[in-house]
Amino acid sequence: MKALKEKIISEGKVLSDTVLKVDTFLNHQIDPQLMQAIGKEFAKRFSDAPITKIVTIESSGIAPATMAGLEMQLPVVFARKRKSLTLSSNLYTATVYSFTKQESNDISISKNMIEKDDVILLIDDFLANGQALKGLYDLVKQAGADIAGAGIVIEKGFQSGGEKIREAGIRVESLAIIDSLSNGQIRFREENITR
Amino acid sequence: MKALKEKIISEGKVLSDTVLKVDTFLNHQIDPQLMQAIGKEFAKRFSDAPITKIVTIESSGIAPATMAGLEMQLPVVFARKRKSLTLSSNLYTATVYSFTKQESNDISISKNMIEKDDVILLIDDFLANGQALKGLYDLVKQAGADIAGAGIVIEKGFQSGGEKIREAGIRVESLAIIDSLSNGQIRFREENITR
Repeated sequence: MKALKEKIISEGKVLSDTVLKVDTFLNHQIDPQLMQAIGKEFAKRFSDAPITKIVTIESSGIAPATMAGLEMQLPVVFARKRKSLTLSSNLYTATVYSFTKQESNDISISKNMIEKDDVILLIDDFLANGQALKGLYDLVKQAGADIAGAGIVIEKGFQSGGEKIREAGIRVESLAIIDSLSNGQIRFREENITR
Repeated sequence: MKALKEKIISEGKVLSDTVLKVDTFLNHQIDPQLMQAIGKEFAKRFSDAPITKIVTIESSGIAPATMAGLEMQLPVVFARKRKSLTLSSNLYTATVYSFTKQESNDISISKNMIEKDDVILLIDDFLANGQALKGLYDLVKQAGADIAGAGIVIEKGFQSGGEKIREAGIRVESLAIIDSLSNGQIRFREENITR
């Protein structure tokens, strides 16, 4: 997605060979216009799938997922990273290890948010080691629902998550795939290989 | 806001005299169409203010704030509830006590996200005791920026936050003000008193 890649080039900060900071438009500050364009792109790429609901994870997945939901006229559910007292104990839960934060979190979704005849589109801001996406997959599978695929804003193609998840038979549509952050340079995978 | 109040009546669950659960459209599952209408309503109510940026707090503030940002063509920053290793240590921080979760959290915003000539619109999903809004106010004031006001989706008018914050001279626009949840009944404040 051209507008996204241009934004990554102009505002992304390469902090190391594995860490890209995009907190001016995705992870801390949000660019709503770009998020809308991202939502439209997800809607286009998954227009052939009979999706009934979008599932994401707090917090940085919420903006792109909500914009996709707006475009696709579908509800969005965000998994929470730990139990909240105002949520019922009637939860699907999975454990997610974050390499960035070096800690494990339980993620959860209320059982009444996903029905077994739902067809779910997973959306997240980043795909790196695939832990968060695997957790979301587990939650949806606990509900017995189908998964149409995963829409990812930025995939770190040099980490193993995307490959593992595609090998598991899950369709992944990443709007920007980064093949390398070496030497402070952002190198994208070519579009015709991406799709 | 009529559509919001109708949604609260049809889907809100009164769990006690003080707790209203709205997790089917705001706090867990998100209704993107309603969020868009909410964003437009905030834009209308604050159309007279020279706002340069919207500030909210993760996670449930993100959807309404992003939709307001889309309508007003402004960036949105969400305060984080604790430090993340990928954020710089260069943070404005404030402590927020959550009566719902019965715990204190530090909230923070990167210092480079707010300039002192910014005019900030605060947006949050709920206003009850006013702790979260006070925390956001503190962060913005640390940056030396001005605050145009606060846009709230649901205000619990029977708790003290709204009154205290208005008495402090901050403009608060709440799209639904609930005066009572007694006896399992949701009673809204009359519109002509609200504005």
